[in-house]
Amino acid sequence: MQQFGVIGLSVMGKNLALNAKNHGFSVAGYSIDKPEVDALAKYEDKDLKPTYTLEDFVNSLERPRKILVQIMAGAPVDEVIQRLIPLLDKEDIIIDGGNSNFHDTVRRSRELEAKGIHFFGMGVSGGEEGALNGPALMPGGDEKAYEEVAPILEAMAAKTPSGQPCVGYIGPEGSGHYVKMVHNGIEYGIMQIICEVYDILRTIGGYSNEEMSDIFSKWDESALKSYLIEITAKVLKQKDDLTPDYVVDHILNEASYKGTGNWMLEDAIKLGVPITVIAEAVMARFMSKATFRDDPEPATAPEKAPEDLVEKLGKALYLATAVSYAQGFEQMTAAAKAYNWGLHYDTIAQNWEAGCIIRSEMLQDIKSAYRADENLQNLFKAPFFDKVKKEDIGALRDIIKLATDAGIPTPTLSAALNYLESIFNPNLPQNLLQAQRDYFGAHTYQRNDRPGTFHTEWYEEK
Amino acid sequence: MQQFGVIGLSVMGKNLALNAKNHGFSVAGYSIDKPEVDALAKYEDKDLKPTYTLEDFVNSLERPRKILVQIMAGAPVDEVIQRLIPLLDKEDIIIDGGNSNFHDTVRRSRELEAKGIHFFGMGVSGGEEGALNGPALMPGGDEKAYEEVAPILEAMAAKTPSGQPCVGYIGPEGSGHYVKMVHNGIEYGIMQIICEVYDILRTIGGYSNEEMSDIFSKWDESALKSYLIEITAKVLKQKDDLTPDYVVDHILNEASYKGTGNWMLEDAIKLGVPITVIAEAVMARFMSKATFRDDPEPATAPEKAPEDLVEKLGKALYLATAVSYAQGFEQMTAAAKAYNWGLHYDTIAQNWEAGCIIRSEMLQDIKSAYRADENLQNLFKAPFFDKVKKEDIGALRDIIKLATDAGIPTPTLSAALNYLESIFNPNLPQNLLQAQRDYFGAHTYQRNDRPGTFHTEWYEEK
Repeated sequence: MQQFGVIGLSVMGKNLALNAKNHGFSVAGYSIDKPEVDALAKYEDKDLKPTYTLEDFVNSLERPRKILVQIMAGAPVDEVIQRLIPLLDKEDIIIDGGNSNFHDTVRRSRELEAKGIHFFGMGVSGGEEGALNGPALMPGGDEKAYEEVAPILEAMAAKTPSGQPCVGYIGPEGSGHYVKMVHNGIEYGIMQIICEVYDILRTIGGYSNEEMSDIFSKWDESALKSYLIEITAKVLKQKDDLTPDYVVDHILNEASYKGTGNWMLEDAIKLGVPITVIAEAVMARFMSKATFRDDPEPATAPEKAPEDLVEKLGKALYLATAVSYAQGFEQMTAAAKAYNWGLHYDTIAQNWEAGCIIRSEMLQDIKSAYRADENLQNLFKAPFFDKVKKEDIGALRDIIKLATDAGIPTPTLSAALNYLESIFNPNLPQNLLQAQRDYFGAHTYQRNDRPGTFHTEWYEEK
Repeated sequence: MQQFGVIGLSVMGKNLALNAKNHGFSVAGYSIDKPEVDALAKYEDKDLKPTYTLEDFVNSLERPRKILVQIMAGAPVDEVIQRLIPLLDKEDIIIDGGNSNFHDTVRRSRELEAKGIHFFGMGVSGGEEGALNGPALMPGGDEKAYEEVAPILEAMAAKTPSGQPCVGYIGPEGSGHYVKMVHNGIEYGIMQIICEVYDILRTIGGYSNEEMSDIFSKWDESALKSYLIEITAKVLKQKDDLTPDYVVDHILNEASYKGTGNWMLEDAIKLGVPITVIAEAVMARFMSKATFRDDPEPATAPEKAPEDLVEKLGKALYLATAVSYAQGFEQMTAAAKAYNWGLHYDTIAQNWEAGCIIRSEMLQDIKSAYRADENLQNLFKAPFFDKVKKEDIGALRDIIKLATDAGIPTPTLSAALNYLESIFNPNLPQNLLQAQRDYFGAHTYQRNDRPGTFHTEWYEEK
């Protein structure tokens, strides 16, 4: 009998199966795509059992069965669940490792738990390579059932620099997929921030690709150390296969997207969370597909770049990245409240410390911040990040001004600065907005000097 | 027999009934709230017939019946429709004048048209006062049936400066409510832009409320002339009833919202439209409710405000307002394509020229732009707005830099600038983002020098 089952054996599923096997677990694999099962059979490994029918697959697993479903999100997940239900026993466990929408995961959890079958929605980050060598895993579902799968998931997961596995129980129902969705939204934010920094480096700094690669490499040896900075350094110096040039200069500047950033934004709107950096990052991708590309006066370098450009850009990049994380954690905090999930933000930060796309040195400081105060309302309320804000906001302001003069768009850098200028601000100007609303719609307002609800008889009404 | 029926007689419904009556139409009114019908009865006017049962109401109307439903959006609309269906005849017309979600309107249209009853979703803007004296009306539904109600709606609607009624057939199904939703999103954008300008005037300019009121009054005599500028001037000089101060200084600076801005943003995300000004405006409202109000270093005025501060602010305000309109029209263009509505943007601009909250001088130029080119892809492609952009973008940049130095948040002004810097930009930096995606997820990319889809074997994979 096999200890772990994987349904769906394309690259992600196969690599996760190999990962479990490499960590000493016997695995059964099934796919509706026969050649995928054949490919598993070729390993001729008794701990990698290929199965050609769902019945064989299910019957090959020890109970309670632990089944990872790694297939395309959407209707296919519902179909495989419906086919599994009559074959499973109570206490068996299905884990959906795809990028499912958390609303679907909530629905599936309720349907399956009502039948006595445990269901986990699990975010998996790290791409193909992570799937094989150690992904970040974000499992949400029944807490007691988690104990059954924890040994396997902990063995498979990436390890933090201090040796902790990048997996931990997230919370009930859709919370695992929710956290993965937020991960992806933060990723959108950081990637766009890096693009803007790159644009400023090349346009204002006049740096070559090699020079920029070196700058990112040096940043990767500082507090900015992170996977996305590391690969940016590598990407910038990669030569093209088809021309003598650098490949980055021949890649079309239209950003694609798959949808998790959009989902995060949709839920932010529903919950009233101001994730402005992520919203601008999502829309910057829209914009890159819609540009008319006919500006008669494209951005131009100033005559002389400031000598401390790179230093200031590094600080701006660090602070704006922190805002992207802060907004993600703010949304998780709002979601935990709205959906009654008891999320542990230090565990989530730890889950992201290795294996996933947004892994970074900064996540250790985020983990420490939430470990010191599990009820932290905003990342910038933590002493470490408060200090970062105070130290780096001047650099961010200077970078915005430089980019503004040069005509370089900075949607996420601007959003990060405006967020920081707003969230602690006692004097936001929306008193005027409330007055306008009361004027034209009698919407009433509250006062800053006494309780109650008020309406003014404005001029025109007198 | 009455020519027009109104269901729901609270202030909006009653005022719309009076409006129709005042324009020579005989009206029947019904409400489930008996005192509202009693209030109508008190007019003792044969052209304002109160009815106490839905049957009496329906039977009092000449055929085809024209029934305006002016009640709370959501389930109540479905309930009243279900009660009406058995009482109506084919070709009768129901008009939902509430702020319904356009998805509901599409559904209701299909259900009713299948029964031979015509259904209009109609946006109504202008508040209570507009309802009585002339609102902007945005009716969407069956085009042929529109001819039946056009004479009444045209009589009721506000009139543009050149005497045109602020109503015209919008398009099928949910298009009328969609256009109203976009109207409200643009309104969110412009209101937040005005708040930021006010914040800069008081903080950097050091102007008093009276002085700011005068500045807005002068702007209202320029190309900036609009209802929102006009009421801002009035609001700023309004004295408080409870203190000797100006009321605006005692209104709590937390912005409320009802949801149409959120709906617009949700659909923008679905359609991939970069309505960044509106997104920032929606989230600025969220932010105003979430601020910790404990900034140890709130925004401070520079030692000396620039002498041309007001002039530059006026230009920045004008240009950013144009961006808010442009993004709204961009979203309608995308929606018309996605939902197969043949929208007429010049008609929509004309509908908004009077009666509604975003009425402005600028809408005449928008109308002219779309009249000159009905396939205009972006407002700033029109010669008039291209010129505005070229003339005013320097002022907008200078204002952003001033606010940045002073620590004043400018989410919508920044978003407006970043939008303008992006949409014509041939050199956006998302080539780097596509390289990152191909690096970590093998997502492939397109090139700028040849067709096809490409993937690079990046360093780590070699």
